[in-house]
Amino acid sequence: MSEQLIIFDTTLRDGEQSPGASMTKDEKLRIARQLERLKVDVIEAGFAASSNGDFESVKAIADTIKDSTVCSLARANDRDISRAAEALKGANRARIHTFIATSALHMEKKLRMTPEQVLEQARQSVRFARNLVGDIEFSPEDGYRSDVDFLCRVLEAVIDEGATTLNIPDTVGYAVPELYGNFIRTLRERVPNSDKAIWSVHCHNDLGMAVANSLAGVKIGGARQVECTINGLGERAGNCSLEEIVMAVRTRRDYFGLTVGVDATQIVPASRMVSQTTGFVVQPNKAVVGANAFAHASGIHQDGVLKARDTYEIMRAEDVGWAANKIVLGKLSGRNAFKQRLQELGIEMESESEINTAFAKFKELADRKAEIFDEDILALVSDESVTAEREQYGLVSLSQRSETGERPHAAVVFTVDGKEFHGEADGNGPVDASLKAIEQHVKSGAELLLYSVNAITSGSTESQGEVTVRLQHGGRVVNGVGSDPDIVVASAKAYLSALNKLHSKADRVAAQG
Amino acid sequence: MSEQLIIFDTTLRDGEQSPGASMTKDEKLRIARQLERLKVDVIEAGFAASSNGDFESVKAIADTIKDSTVCSLARANDRDISRAAEALKGANRARIHTFIATSALHMEKKLRMTPEQVLEQARQSVRFARNLVGDIEFSPEDGYRSDVDFLCRVLEAVIDEGATTLNIPDTVGYAVPELYGNFIRTLRERVPNSDKAIWSVHCHNDLGMAVANSLAGVKIGGARQVECTINGLGERAGNCSLEEIVMAVRTRRDYFGLTVGVDATQIVPASRMVSQTTGFVVQPNKAVVGANAFAHASGIHQDGVLKARDTYEIMRAEDVGWAANKIVLGKLSGRNAFKQRLQELGIEMESESEINTAFAKFKELADRKAEIFDEDILALVSDESVTAEREQYGLVSLSQRSETGERPHAAVVFTVDGKEFHGEADGNGPVDASLKAIEQHVKSGAELLLYSVNAITSGSTESQGEVTVRLQHGGRVVNGVGSDPDIVVASAKAYLSALNKLHSKADRVAAQG
Repeated sequence: MSEQLIIFDTTLRDGEQSPGASMTKDEKLRIARQLERLKVDVIEAGFAASSNGDFESVKAIADTIKDSTVCSLARANDRDISRAAEALKGANRARIHTFIATSALHMEKKLRMTPEQVLEQARQSVRFARNLVGDIEFSPEDGYRSDVDFLCRVLEAVIDEGATTLNIPDTVGYAVPELYGNFIRTLRERVPNSDKAIWSVHCHNDLGMAVANSLAGVKIGGARQVECTINGLGERAGNCSLEEIVMAVRTRRDYFGLTVGVDATQIVPASRMVSQTTGFVVQPNKAVVGANAFAHASGIHQDGVLKARDTYEIMRAEDVGWAANKIVLGKLSGRNAFKQRLQELGIEMESESEINTAFAKFKELADRKAEIFDEDILALVSDESVTAEREQYGLVSLSQRSETGERPHAAVVFTVDGKEFHGEADGNGPVDASLKAIEQHVKSGAELLLYSVNAITSGSTESQGEVTVRLQHGGRVVNGVGSDPDIVVASAKAYLSALNKLHSKADRVAAQG
Repeated sequence: MSEQLIIFDTTLRDGEQSPGASMTKDEKLRIARQLERLKVDVIEAGFAASSNGDFESVKAIADTIKDSTVCSLARANDRDISRAAEALKGANRARIHTFIATSALHMEKKLRMTPEQVLEQARQSVRFARNLVGDIEFSPEDGYRSDVDFLCRVLEAVIDEGATTLNIPDTVGYAVPELYGNFIRTLRERVPNSDKAIWSVHCHNDLGMAVANSLAGVKIGGARQVECTINGLGERAGNCSLEEIVMAVRTRRDYFGLTVGVDATQIVPASRMVSQTTGFVVQPNKAVVGANAFAHASGIHQDGVLKARDTYEIMRAEDVGWAANKIVLGKLSGRNAFKQRLQELGIEMESESEINTAFAKFKELADRKAEIFDEDILALVSDESVTAEREQYGLVSLSQRSETGERPHAAVVFTVDGKEFHGEADGNGPVDASLKAIEQHVKSGAELLLYSVNAITSGSTESQGEVTVRLQHGGRVVNGVGSDPDIVVASAKAYLSALNKLHSKADRVAAQG
């Protein structure tokens, strides 16, 4: 029986820190349910002390998830740790993940603390946390760039205080596999009682090597936990990709000699859910979850694949959850069938009236689109309007026209706090005109950073368009997502959804272990 | 003085093999010019024997590029090699890259040849090629999964025949860094006269480790050439990313001890050009070239970055060519300014009438959009209609309208072989209606695999939308790209552009070294 590699998913914490990827409580809960279906060992649900919103998200996930350990990040201070413990109270298995920077650069420039102060604070914090929760993870931030002697002292101290997992982040994505693997090995060899804790790796992808670095930490260094995110979501170039780690360990079991508990067939559904929720597209040539990951174009390859599948395939598409799009529901599907499909997709609505709202939207969609796929249902419930969260802005109706040689025009009716407004405007295109018609009244002053559309399902032009709009205002970046078979309507929805997020008062502190 | 790592770019050959990434001759030439500006050492321009179109592309690039070596792929037979040599005749520095599979699986299932036959064919082909061109690269396809004893015999034979570069592909993306590095080292140690050739690595990203594997081949194995593509474009999960290799070697020069000749400030322009040309989006969390690669969201990070830049940054955005969008041209810019900017962007038009057509399009755009960025100009010339290549389908005019509660409607006037057609249709949205209006007459029967829109420039809703439409028909997959401030118009252009590509008779054989 081989040893198991612990998969620690931080999509909802480190992933969410990506500019524009912030999620609502309901969105996080939906993803957490999918992570549980994926059978990840640990779900880092957020950073409870960073904002009331994040506290509520961590709490909701801790109260809901049964199979995976639920974890909250906390800086190395009593207040943060208490908040984390409080949010995790309802969890079957709770973990507090506390961190403090240990590199000379970070201690001096960011913390403005001496190494001795940092060491003492690490020790005190783990001691404090250990009295609240039995499962404590400690991360020396920027660990890979820290002085190894000092780092060993810190790690020895936190093991003494009862830390159960030691996570060594390559915070800035500077490592290469050989050096990172040797670094973990050195720490494990030099720190007294290192066998009393599980060692963990946390790598960023700035030089494109997060997966290889993590796996070197496992193979050479002896780490038994990998921190990763769905689609490699995360700040800058992102975190280590969960899907690549899992499939590398499975495909090269001959080399790694480890098992993973993850149900790989849930990988593609998880990838789609995270991509649809955050509006972060997955590029076609992304390993495992990209649209082309299992496609073959060239004549020689097709020929090779026909002759023997493994000439060019080391994984099977169906093993990671790629399946032909299945038509799951249609015009004639009833409320019960719809409700059941929601449950199968991990979407749990809190009240019957919410289900009714969603079902009405479903029927409306089914009138316009013959075949309703899972992606359509996910997009439908991603619309802010069917979630429980209060929305300030909502779309009522839209009409627009454009004609070669004339200036496109749009008229939009929308609500602000329940009151209807009517806006009309010209624009460079119908989308520009529609957004201007809204902006006329709203005067948000937000800057549009990104606009993108993806068809939700392939195979026909009847597909819904899913529009992502990224706005920046007052130092905050938000993504709004809207979907509709009419992409102008989807654009207006996405814009209003982004405005809702922009105006929700989510002051928050974020951090990275 | 440190040794130099040779950067071999295969965007135009292995990258182009990605389903939907096929490019026209003009597109390839434009990218080749950018690769020359990027100062890559070798440009693999195509696979001359695979089709007449590819022959012409390789020839045009060989005739144009002065600074980089121009290479053509060729199977290990006299006909392929002769075609390659013929296409490369005009090159300042020419290389023929010939390959044959050496893994048991590929020899048996795909080639249906015995190892001895393969060995003999490899030897004969390199001998034949060496009489035509002095610079010969040999690749044993699926080399990493080949029997090492047999592979050594093949490599010894081709060195004897004068091969100057030996490239060891991990064709299926199965390798891990330690094993791949050791594999290259073993080969270099065991093959007699191994120092007479430069060793090269060619890795695929199926398990997310192409960059780390390539660099292990360099560091552990002693390879001095890396084969890579812009944006990691390539079949399935793609090839090793040029931008990641270059920045890893530069950023970790302390470890690799090598220099690269690439001008890194041309990386982002190259990335955008390849993405715009192929319609393959780059995900925001892509290392180096993703929109978020240098963005920081979280409060702590922003604070850290303000206090000391290198707390969270190991590279500078400007070093890889990220710059604030510059307004380069406007409504009042004249034909000369436009022509000069085209030249600076590496777009060389063949005739004055082509420049006139492009300039007319530019003025038309400038009437609708106050600020014209480089991206706008690139998009404008990406429209098939301004390139020299003959187009079967073209857009004349479009009008559309949609209104909540009513069925969207579109009327499209377009040309087929110069003759005008008028189509009208209803649809689920204005885009669906417009494409149906075209399809009514054209009856292509193509299946829409992908539909996506990206705003070309950020900062305002006035940006042009760039639409990518991917169609599949009769076993062929093509991407069409269209841009316009009106995304419905851009969609119709993209659809017609895809139809043009679908109907161009590009029967071709493709392969992967």
